[in-house]
Amino acid sequence: MLIAEPLQRAIEELSKLPSIGKKTAQRLALHILKSDESSVNALIQSLSDLKTKIRFCEECFNISVAEKCDICLSPKRDHSIICVVEEASDIIAIEKTNEYNGLYHVLGGVLNPLANVTEEQLHIKELISRVEKGGIQEVILALNPDTEGDTTSLYLIKLLKEYPIKISRIARGLPIGGDLEFADPATIGRAFIGRITL
Amino acid sequence: MLIAEPLQRAIEELSKLPSIGKKTAQRLALHILKSDESSVNALIQSLSDLKTKIRFCEECFNISVAEKCDICLSPKRDHSIICVVEEASDIIAIEKTNEYNGLYHVLGGVLNPLANVTEEQLHIKELISRVEKGGIQEVILALNPDTEGDTTSLYLIKLLKEYPIKISRIARGLPIGGDLEFADPATIGRAFIGRITL
Repeated sequence: MLIAEPLQRAIEELSKLPSIGKKTAQRLALHILKSDESSVNALIQSLSDLKTKIRFCEECFNISVAEKCDICLSPKRDHSIICVVEEASDIIAIEKTNEYNGLYHVLGGVLNPLANVTEEQLHIKELISRVEKGGIQEVILALNPDTEGDTTSLYLIKLLKEYPIKISRIARGLPIGGDLEFADPATIGRAFIGRITL
Repeated sequence: MLIAEPLQRAIEELSKLPSIGKKTAQRLALHILKSDESSVNALIQSLSDLKTKIRFCEECFNISVAEKCDICLSPKRDHSIICVVEEASDIIAIEKTNEYNGLYHVLGGVLNPLANVTEEQLHIKELISRVEKGGIQEVILALNPDTEGDTTSLYLIKLLKEYPIKISRIARGLPIGGDLEFADPATIGRAFIGRITL
């Protein structure tokens, strides 16, 4: 097949991205080819800035442009609560709710022996040293409700029990707008176990 | 919400691309953020090369790196047949079949009075002058089988009838692997009209 080499290569590079198949990559490459130069430059610049301007907060490992992230630096946030999440993207999801006003701590993954992820690869000791420094009253575990997330939560609970702080985990139950009839038994079971007295 | 500005901007730029929504853009941006520098640079370089290294063939308006595209320059192709397509992406689709070995001509769209696309905006006069130059024995029309494609085909047939060449149109019928039961009536009708004596 005789496709111009730069187009072929752009398609290959784009199709390496998650959820982008060969066909979508081709559509994107042809779209970029047809777009005016300024919008393509804006896209390229924004991708390049991602790698050069973004670093990770040295306190909580959130995405940041400075040594510490905006959340850690904000005086409006409650600095006595830490919410532990797997990835920085979870912070974006939680921030969208406007329900949480404390700090975060990004583990950078969850314990997964099959994938060779051990406690040393996660930011667990940094979490413990934040708690040791004092001033923390509560640690909320907000890991994904799956086997690895639960295992990691149990491991963290064991470590955190050594300190005089409240440890909590975000609730499991029926999702808002969900339908009891179509919910899986495990979720309904959790909803019963976690029922709240009114 | 406190998302680092470069991340926010990359998400915005990515979500301007076709078929990329806000959620996918966020996933892509976070993926790029986590990728190693060399693979991000390869992606950026390939997108930048798309705009700087690619031009359009001055003969057939296919995507090209030189004045003329590889297909127009190839001595292995049959230079007596021109296949007329709407967009350069159609050439990629046809080349994948390995069924066609002639040249192409990219119109750059189809006649569409509602979208203000008239014959002047398409590469129609360039097609006619290629035919006028001589050496062409057949023009195959391979425009999309929709109203605008059909209108444009009829317009081209009228113009090309002036020259002593064969004019053809690619077949319409049931797609390979398709199911007669679920095909639309127009397609089945076309399949009957275009039936081949065995």
